[in-house]
This record gives sequence, structure tokens and C-alpha cells, in this order.
Amino acid sequence: MKILDIKEKTVSLQSSIRNAYIDFSQMTASVVAIITDQFIDGEQVVGFGFNSNGRYGQGALMRERLIPRIMNLSEKEQSNVMGDNLDPFKLWNAMMVNEKPGGHGERAVGVGTLDMAIWDAVAKIANIPLWKYLSDNFNSGKYDEKVFVYAAGGYYQPEKDLDLLRDEVRSYLDQGFEVVKIKVGGADINHDKKRIEAVLKIVADPSNLAVDANGRFNTQQALDFGNMISPYKLRWYEEPGDPLDYELSHIIADNYKGPIATGENLFSSQDSKNLILYGGLRSETDILQFDPALSYGLVEFMRTIKMLEKHAWSRRSCIPHGGHLMALNIAAGLGLGGNEAYPGVFEPFGGFFDGYSLSPEGIYLHDNPGIGFEGKKDLILLLRSVLI
Amino acid sequence: MKILDIKEKTVSLQSSIRNAYIDFSQMTASVVAIITDQFIDGEQVVGFGFNSNGRYGQGALMRERLIPRIMNLSEKEQSNVMGDNLDPFKLWNAMMVNEKPGGHGERAVGVGTLDMAIWDAVAKIANIPLWKYLSDNFNSGKYDEKVFVYAAGGYYQPEKDLDLLRDEVRSYLDQGFEVVKIKVGGADINHDKKRIEAVLKIVADPSNLAVDANGRFNTQQALDFGNMISPYKLRWYEEPGDPLDYELSHIIADNYKGPIATGENLFSSQDSKNLILYGGLRSETDILQFDPALSYGLVEFMRTIKMLEKHAWSRRSCIPHGGHLMALNIAAGLGLGGNEAYPGVFEPFGGFFDGYSLSPEGIYLHDNPGIGFEGKKDLILLLRSVLI
Repeated sequence: MKILDIKEKTVSLQSSIRNAYIDFSQMTASVVAIITDQFIDGEQVVGFGFNSNGRYGQGALMRERLIPRIMNLSEKEQSNVMGDNLDPFKLWNAMMVNEKPGGHGERAVGVGTLDMAIWDAVAKIANIPLWKYLSDNFNSGKYDEKVFVYAAGGYYQPEKDLDLLRDEVRSYLDQGFEVVKIKVGGADINHDKKRIEAVLKIVADPSNLAVDANGRFNTQQALDFGNMISPYKLRWYEEPGDPLDYELSHIIADNYKGPIATGENLFSSQDSKNLILYGGLRSETDILQFDPALSYGLVEFMRTIKMLEKHAWSRRSCIPHGGHLMALNIAAGLGLGGNEAYPGVFEPFGGFFDGYSLSPEGIYLHDNPGIGFEGKKDLILLLRSVLI
Repeated sequence: MKILDIKEKTVSLQSSIRNAYIDFSQMTASVVAIITDQFIDGEQVVGFGFNSNGRYGQGALMRERLIPRIMNLSEKEQSNVMGDNLDPFKLWNAMMVNEKPGGHGERAVGVGTLDMAIWDAVAKIANIPLWKYLSDNFNSGKYDEKVFVYAAGGYYQPEKDLDLLRDEVRSYLDQGFEVVKIKVGGADINHDKKRIEAVLKIVADPSNLAVDANGRFNTQQALDFGNMISPYKLRWYEEPGDPLDYELSHIIADNYKGPIATGENLFSSQDSKNLILYGGLRSETDILQFDPALSYGLVEFMRTIKMLEKHAWSRRSCIPHGGHLMALNIAAGLGLGGNEAYPGVFEPFGGFFDGYSLSPEGIYLHDNPGIGFEGKKDLILLLRSVLI
């Protein structure tokens, strides 16, 4: 039971979209493959991972620091006590040797990318889907047959007018999504108001539309925007201000009565804990969007769930950012509140399994061993290209 | 007035020391040179920078993201309004284009490294020392002729017993330092007590000894350690627990009456603000150690000073981590409380100018244009090697 090799490469995301903060035309992503000495049905077990969108690929950081620390371990140091699988927790600890506390940025992305590939390998070695592995080992056998997903889109694009925005949203509804999210904060407030009203005309109910400011507003702008959207009773108001500005978060939560969503730019359990302690969020209504792939992976995310439950939050409040199959497996196997999806954006990393079935109650799960990349042809072809 | 080229390379710190968290045998640092089209006395102006210790070199991140964003600017976009110097604020903004908020880690180190070289070039183009440039432009002409410095050492090293620790501290006292700092938290509490008592025998007063746990303790351990050292009345108790654990910080500040020091692992103004708002620290006694070179550079550090003063803290409470000449210039020119020094450790990045003069009141300043690297032969030789 040993990792024989770890390969990585950087790919371009090549997208012309932008949100209120960044454009994605220069965005990159890392792809990794963990090659094990195990064979299932004659095929060598390889775990795949990639970094979630919004942060750049971390090839150099993984090559210089994280991968050598894993490869320097003995077989025993990589394996679980039974010796029948890799141990993601031991591997995580090894990656973080000689890393100082604090400073949770690119390192969290690199660890999250490798952690994804490790869990893919672990579930493949167990020869079951990752959601099932997580359910069996960490959730007393409980899992969700269907996972709530919503379509995140409505980016600012050159020459995208209201008609095109409506067309985009209509295409999500046609695909079976009930809830959609659009970007705000990248235009003046009056134009954003028009964008919201344009979409409200085609969704069944205002609670089917969420808006995402991507941390763009200062406190006053965030308050003003909250007042503007308040009458619409939208699904949620996402990342009004700087994600680490807990004081702003507290002020908005005290003034905006509808649900607030945030957390995709907090990259450690400790940062998440600070949000819970100081951000003024309300466990009954608000949504936490920590993205396991950006924030030190599932090993750290399990700590975050523990922290949340200690502070009387439900894990159902978590609807991770990222729209990747890793978070979909976690949502099903550990019982989260759902998962983001980016239909047609960030492909092939976004989207679901080929031939997926989406009902109003959510998406049905896959039965591929591991995370299920093998059930999404365009994605597995890209992932396998790292092996060549 | 234009940047013609930016060069960088990674060097090894090659040190056998360790603190309570990491060992430094694998630690790297980035060195950068910003080559301008300006000449002073026939010599081309080159600004140098490096990343402060404790975090790894960020060569790839700078090459892939930060440097191209600077090099893509026009001459006008790089220059100040007068057109007679580079504009560090414009260059800073350019480096942060297409970077999402939050996730302050390696990126903060890369920006801080380039920011150092930019300020070195700016002061060289003005043909005055950086401390003088900062005094003239950002501190109403005020500056400190001497800067308080203390010797940070007392690392754990293989086979370092109490005699060697005492010898090390004695060498600092012989060099003219009054205040020294040793590491704690890397051994059991009884052994650390022996280390402290061994050093207390040779410093003039207990207020001349500070201890640094490098974030190692959980809340209970931090309380226990605080109780153990409380009777000694040491200079300060540094980084008892996780640097982002403001709840722990608050509990320790409520229980440990002596000064607490922290902040070297907070990498943005927003994180610093959270420490001030939630960490329970006391502006009369406690020390803030934000390291400009690790936390987005001097441009961001100026925002941190503003934030502190808005919250009724004095900039004199700041004694930056890192022991580098950049922070020494900032301390003198902007009137901070002092600067760390690592005599003989992290050379050639640590230490002072050749032939420096250290009195009990502090170290006298240099009169080299820029940060003054040219006055430290071993360091400038290393920095210039990036040009070859």
C-alpha cells in the first residue's frame, strides 16, 4: 500500500467571464494524479484531484514542499493501521510538516488539491464511491440519495445585456435547476437592480434567486445594497464585503433580515471559527460556503464540521463553493445542505456526471468508485492527461 | 522612469535551528532585483528585496502572477504624478489585479518581497536612505535617530544544552544588546523553565528576557505556561497559541498580566484589525509584530498603522518580526517601537550594517541611499548575484 508517484500539471481555465472582483481570462488550475501500487480488476489505482476555481494553480508549491514530504514517507507512514488503504490524515500531517501556523492562502489550495486526489484513491482502493466511503466511515452509514444543487452563473461578460442574462438563466431552468445565482457588485447599483428584476421575471419564486457580490462592497455599500434587495426576499445575499471583515459581516447581519451566505474565501478551520464567533451570522438562516478543495481539503473540512456543531450550527448550513464533484460527494456522504454547480462554466471541472438526473429535489448520486471522475468523460480525459 | 526588468531567484537558508513549530533546514528565501532605467552618479538604479524568514521563497508565484502584471504596465502607470519616481502604490495595485479577497498566505509574501525592492529603488532614485524618504513623505519629517533592537535567538538546536544557550545569550549581551528573546514551547514545560532560569542568571533584569512559543500551545497549555512564567516578570510572552485564534488570545490576555506579543503570522491589515478587535490585547502593554515583508509590504503596512491609530493604538506598539533592514528603516522613518534582530542567524539576511554602532538606547541609522543593503557586504553580494 504505497504511493509510487505523484504527477501534476497546470492547465488554463480560459474563460471570458468576470465577477465583481476578478476576471478569469488568466486563471489557471492545477491537476494532480496520485499513482498507487494497488490494482482493482487489473487496473492500477490512480487518484485524481484539481484545485477549485477562483485561485491559481499551485504546481510549484506542491512540487517544492508538499509532494516531497509525501514521497519521503515509508509505506507504513502512508497507510492506515490495518494496512489496507492509504491514510488521508497521516498524509495531511506530513504535508504540513515545517509549515508555520497562520498565513492560510496558496498552501491551503495546494494541500486541498492533493487531499482530493488522496480521497479519490482511498475510495477507489475500497472500491466504492467516495460518498459511500464517507457515509460508512464518518457518518454512521447515513447519506443523502439526492443533493440540493443550484446553478451559479450570471457573471459579467463583455456585451452581456439583460436579454442574454435572461437566456442564460432560462437555460439553467431548462436543465432542471430551480435555484440560480447571479453576480452583483460589478456594476452600479441601478444596473444590478435591473439584472435582478430581469431574472425575477423568469424564476418561479424570488426565493429561487440568490445574488453574489464577491466581497466587493464596503460597509455602507453593503448596507445600501442590502436595503435595495431586501423587498425582493431573495434566496440569499452572498459575500457582501471582505470575507475576513467580521465586523462588516456583523453589521450586515444585524441589518439585513434575509439569509446571508459567505465563507468561500476562508481557507482554514480557524478562520471559519472566527467567522462563527465574530461575524454575527444566524445559524437558523445563513449559509456557509467553505470550499474543501480550497481550504486544506476534506481532512480540514471535517474539523470545520466538528467546530460548527460545537457552536450549535448544523452541517446542513454548509453549501460549499466550487461546483466540483469532490464537494458533491462530501455533501451526500456527510449530509451537508447541498452544493454549488456551474453549468457550462469552468468546464470540464464544473458540471455533473454524464447522463446525470436532476430533479427538483436535487441530483442523484453516482456509483463509480472514488469521486466519480470516470463518469464524466471530458473531465477524466483532462485528468488522465497529467499521466502522459 | 521605468522598470526595465525584474529578476528573482531562490536561495536556501540552510540553518539547523528549529523553533516550537518548524525546523529551518529546508527553508528557502526569494531574492529579487528591480532594474530601472535611472542612473545615479553613473550607476544604474537597482532595487533589491527578499522574503522574510519563516516562509518559503515565492519564485513561481512572482513569475507567474505578480511580475508580469508590473511589466505589462506603461511607463506612466508605473510612475508617480510628478513622473520623477516609481509609484509603490500604483505598482501594489497592479500586483493585486485579478486576485480574490481573503486567503492571505504565500501571495502576501510574494507581494512583500517585490514591495521591498520597489521601496529600495524609490529611495535610491531619490538618492536618500529609505528611513529619510519615509520620514519626509509620510511622517512630517520626524524620525528616530536610534531604533530599539533586541536579539532573537535561543532556538532549539540538536545538542544545545543550557551551557550553550547561556553562551549564545552572553554573546548577544557582548554585542551590545540589552534585551534577548529565547524560544519556548518546543520542550516540556519543566525544561523550558530551566532554559528561562539559566538565561535570567545572565541578563541584567528579567525585563530583558522575552520568550516566544511560536503559536505552539492550546488554550490550557498557554494558560499553564503563562502561570509558570508570571512570577519572573519577563519582557513579553510571545505567540502563546495559533496566531489566528483570537478567542485564545483574549483568554490569555485576561489571565496573563505581563505584556503579550504577537502578529508575525498575520499577513494582512484585515487580519491585524481582527486581532485588535477580538484578541483582547491591551494597547498600553502589548506588542504587535506584523512583519511588513511577509504581509504585502510597506504599502499594506501603512494601512495597518492607520487602522491601529483609528483603534487608539500607538504605532510605537509595533516591533516587527523578521530582523531585516527593511523593517529597521520603517521603524526609524515612521516611528515604530523598534525592530527584531537575529545576530548570526539567517545570515546574511539578518544582522545590521557593517561597522554598526549599537548603544543601550538602540542602533544608529545608516546613510546609504535606499534600504542600505550596500552597507552590508555579505548581503549585497548575495543580492547582486540575482543579476548574473
